[in-house]
This record gives sequence, C-alpha cells and structure tokens, in this order.
Amino acid sequence: MATATLTIDLDALITNWRALDARTEVPTAAVVKADGYGLGADRAARALMRAGVDTFFVAVAEEGAALREAVGPSPIINVFGGHMSGDTDMMSDMMLTPMLNSIDQIVRHFEALPEHPFGIQLDTGMNRLGLEEAEWAAVAETVLSRSPKLVMSHLACADEPEHPMNPQQLATFKRLTDGINVPRSLAATGGILMGSDYHFDLTRPGVGLYGGMPFVEATPVTSLSIPVIQIRDVAEGETVGYSNTWIAERDSRVATISAGYADGLIRAMGANVDVFANEIRCPVIGRVSMDLITVDVTDVPEEHKTLELLGLHQSVDTVAEAAGTIGYEILTSLGARYYRRYKSA
Amino acid sequence: MATATLTIDLDALITNWRALDARTEVPTAAVVKADGYGLGADRAARALMRAGVDTFFVAVAEEGAALREAVGPSPIINVFGGHMSGDTDMMSDMMLTPMLNSIDQIVRHFEALPEHPFGIQLDTGMNRLGLEEAEWAAVAETVLSRSPKLVMSHLACADEPEHPMNPQQLATFKRLTDGINVPRSLAATGGILMGSDYHFDLTRPGVGLYGGMPFVEATPVTSLSIPVIQIRDVAEGETVGYSNTWIAERDSRVATISAGYADGLIRAMGANVDVFANEIRCPVIGRVSMDLITVDVTDVPEEHKTLELLGLHQSVDTVAEAAGTIGYEILTSLGARYYRRYKSA
Repeated sequence: MATATLTIDLDALITNWRALDARTEVPTAAVVKADGYGLGADRAARALMRAGVDTFFVAVAEEGAALREAVGPSPIINVFGGHMSGDTDMMSDMMLTPMLNSIDQIVRHFEALPEHPFGIQLDTGMNRLGLEEAEWAAVAETVLSRSPKLVMSHLACADEPEHPMNPQQLATFKRLTDGINVPRSLAATGGILMGSDYHFDLTRPGVGLYGGMPFVEATPVTSLSIPVIQIRDVAEGETVGYSNTWIAERDSRVATISAGYADGLIRAMGANVDVFANEIRCPVIGRVSMDLITVDVTDVPEEHKTLELLGLHQSVDTVAEAAGTIGYEILTSLGARYYRRYKSA
Repeated sequence: MATATLTIDLDALITNWRALDARTEVPTAAVVKADGYGLGADRAARALMRAGVDTFFVAVAEEGAALREAVGPSPIINVFGGHMSGDTDMMSDMMLTPMLNSIDQIVRHFEALPEHPFGIQLDTGMNRLGLEEAEWAAVAETVLSRSPKLVMSHLACADEPEHPMNPQQLATFKRLTDGINVPRSLAATGGILMGSDYHFDLTRPGVGLYGGMPFVEATPVTSLSIPVIQIRDVAEGETVGYSNTWIAERDSRVATISAGYADGLIRAMGANVDVFANEIRCPVIGRVSMDLITVDVTDVPEEHKTLELLGLHQSVDTVAEAAGTIGYEILTSLGARYYRRYKSA
C-alpha cells in the first residue's frame, strides 16, 4: 500500500471539547463545517455527541443534510450561511436551523417556512455575514416576535486577543442585543479564550477541537504517516525533483514518499517543512510534487517504511507556518486519498 | 443552495487529448492520477475511453483499483508508484500494471506475481522515482527476459523547454534503453510539446488534458460559479474580513460568496485574485476564509446571484499565479463540497 495513513484521534477531539467547555459557564456547541475541518464531520459529530454535544454548526444546508443523516434527529444543526434560494425543502426535511443573514433571507424564511426554527446572524464589524445595524433596527421587533432560537455574530480578530477590534465588536454586539430575551452567541475558539465577557449563552468552538491554534493547549488530533516508496543514493552535486531546485551538498540518501500536494500537503511548504523518522528530523528537499515528496534521510541510520509529517513531533500549526498559512487550511486541505483511521478507546 | 457549482467539460477534455495526440505519431495514454487531477478520474476516464484511450496511468494501486471499477476490464492501468508491500492482491485482482521503481520492487513483484505484467521506471536524473543507472545495469538482462510492457522515465524540467536538463535526461534515457525490444515512454504534456525526439512509443499527458499549462492552446475544462450569500454597503474607512486586512477607500458594495479555502481556493491567493460578474472583473478583498470570500462589487450595476472564479474569463493558471503556485495544484485542490456538473454533448 502506497497511500499514507491519516490517524484521527477521536478521544483527543473529545478532550479538546471538554477543555474548551470547562473554560466557560455556558453550553458549548461544536462547529463541524468543511467536513469537520477536513477530519470527517460524521465521525467527529458522533464522537462529540457521546461527550454531550447537542448543537452543531455547519456552513451550508447541504452539509447540514449530510450531518443529519449521520447524527439522527436529536441534535440541533445550525447553518451559518442561512436560508438560500433552493434550500427550503432541505431546511424543512432535515430539520436545519438557518442563521438568517439578510433581509432577503428573513423574508424568504418567513414566507416559505413560517413555523420553522431560525436564528439571526448580526454583523458587528467584520462585514462578511449578517445583518447590518440599520437593517437590524428595522426588523428586530418583527423578528423577535417570531422567537429566534439564537442571535449570533462572529469576531474578525479573535486569534489576536489584544486587537482593539475585539472589544469594539463586543460592545456592538451588546448594543444590538442587550435586553432581548433570546440566547446569544459570539465566541468561537478564540472568543472562548478571551474570557467570560465573550461567552454569552452558547460558545461554538471549531479549530480548537481539531487541535489547532489559537487553542495552545489543544491535544493533537491528527497524525500522518507516509510510506517510503524507495530510497536512493544521490552523489554530491546531483539534483533532485522538479526544476532541479535542490542540489546535494554532500553524498546523500534520498527517500521518495507517497504523498504530495494532491493530498493537501500544500506545495508552498516546499523545503521549509520536515518529516520525522521516529525522533529524527529529516528535511524535505526539492519541490513537493503532486503525489510524491523527496526527503533527505542521510542522517537516519536504518531504513524506515514510513515517515511522519503530522503527529507528536510536528503540529498542524508548525506545518502551516512552513507553508505560509494557518493551521485551519492545513486541516481542511487534508486529502481524499489517505487511508483514514479513527482512533477511540 | 449555497454550494458552488464546478462544471467539468468532458468534451473539452477530449478535445485536449485529441490535440495532444495529434502532436505525435505514437499512441497517447492519459494520466488520471489524483482523482483525474481533481476533476473525477471515473468520469474523465470513461469520456477518454470513448475518444479511443486504452491506457491510463495512476499514482498508487488504490487509485488503480477504483479506476478499474469505473472503466471495466479492457484498458491498461499503469501504476507509477510500482508494486508496494501489501499491493499484491490488488495488482492481481484488479489487473494493474506496476511500474517497478527499485530492486526491492522488482524482487517483490517477481516473487509474488511471476506471470503478471509489469513495467520499469528508470531514473534519468530527477532522483525521485525509478532505478538508478547502476541498478538498471545490474538487473536489465534478467528484467528484459521477463518482457516488461513498458520502460519509462520522467522529465524534471519539461515545463521549461529550454532547460538543459531536458536533452540531458533524453540522452540518459536513450543510453539506458536504446536497442531494447520494449515500448518506451518519456513524455508527459511538456515532453509532447518538445517534439518527436521525446515521444518514443507512448506519450502520457496529464495536466494538458485538464486545461493547464504548459499546453498553452488547451481548451478550458473547468468553470466555477459561486453563489452570492448577501451584498452589503460598506462605508469608506470600514474594514472587511479577518484581521481587518481590507479597508474601504470609498463607499463600497461588498458581496459575500459561498466558497473558501476549504473548497481548495487556496488562502494564499487572497486579494490577488478576481472573480467575474459576467464580463465585469471584481476584486476579491480581505482574506479568503474557510467557507466564504468577500468581493468588491461596487462597479457592478445589477445584483448577481453567482460570481465566476474559473471559466472563460479566468484560467486555472491565472488563479495559480495569484496564489503563487502552479495550475496543477489549483486543479487537484478543487474541493469535495462543490456540486459537480459534467458537461458532454
């Protein structure tokens, strides 16, 4: 077998959820959009349900429908993207709760599904999703008379706790919602870590569950072990890989391993990333190609059948830094070709 | 519906294969590894078979097994990664032809499946996959007595036709294989374009089929249309998106569209890329987030329900340039959340 093995530790996922839940006095939902940040929304959600999660968030109705089939009728499934044209049957049949983002969506929802649960997303400064302040002022009374299940907003700078945008969005959210008799939610992972002012009535962590920053204490959830296809001797002065970008500065041993950017190992990480032979750090050399990566294993005494790219020795965020991106993108890029092994006690 | 629609033009795929086939006097295979460069190996291969393709290449045995189920018993399926430990049953049951890369693989194959077809991959300087010259010298006679189906190698710099590595690898390949009575293959898309010296007995285009460089005359195969979730007014001086990276220099209209880096729209493209409202170019603003992208639509007179990121107005390679990568990675990153529409006359 030449496909790499992605191991997903469902116990670590639950440990992370419990740790974030313990930071607040309020209920904790779980965000499983983008197929559970690339790790499998169905398996992640079922594990989280066993730990007590009863509310999930997804990005779009189609994700909600697939999740409903995985988790059964009881959990609440909230849809950040709201109620789009063409979504009505899915919202209704799959019991999804749209977070309505605009007057258009509110009108669509009230006309199509007048008795169906909904939430409201307010924009508090990110200017991405949600009602503007003036729009909310115009419709709040009508909307509130229909008993929304949740009023929420999203922080633009929660990964930088000292950013002045955070207290500014908090103040706006309070100004727009203080005194209403509806549960409120503002905090994802970053918001949870900023303290109780941000917690309101429900938190909704995403990346922290999956072992990513800004939740520094997260338990790693993923490990990635990549088979070695072959090992060769490369003489000093020889080149390796596309466009000859790596030139051997000494007589070297080079391993070719079976994964590449088609597996989500972002091409930009190139030679900035390492892989591990047990404890020994081995530099990636040359370009990451579609299905293959070459590694300098000159300093590894014995031959290894696999090398590890993610795991205890290297986190999603370290790999992200090598690729010039954030851990979130490393997770959601993890590819379809891996053999996925779900670990649970 | 808030998921974006990825349209894959199977007729364009066939047009590209025919155009590349017409550049040579020899048979033309098709590379459909990495799930057909992200576009669906099963659909791509079945379309290509109708155009006359009878030989496919994949990266690993697992891909070959899935492809065999899609295309039935007749086509040849060659596996670049060769015969790995644990692959034997799949090779045999699914009638896959491994390109053996090392002495280890040759021994494994001859012991496990002595009568089963195989090919040989030689390293001619890329130092990634294939037998080294000295290894080939040691085993060539034995191997050739077993009648390999193909002897192949891969060019490291074929996307740069003037690179001295190309004639050097060509000379090495000829030195290692001239006079043998076995079909030979050296050229993928780039090699086809470099002329008949590189064509030998079989070419095996990949990226050119799917509309990517270096096949400049390729017909575009993909288009990507992304639904608008909402449009808002943003006053001069307001910020948009994560970390407030975009600040409105004028009163603006901002559309939030439903796709992001979890859909393979690489985060690094950020504000370097545009989307299109029919003919009108609209700049992406702020950061690409996981499920959402914000777009400046101030100069678009009417409201559009969707905006186009890939298609006639913008190629895979233009998007790649914005993201600091190559078209190949844009293709293989295209995500699982899209509604995929296959177009064929």
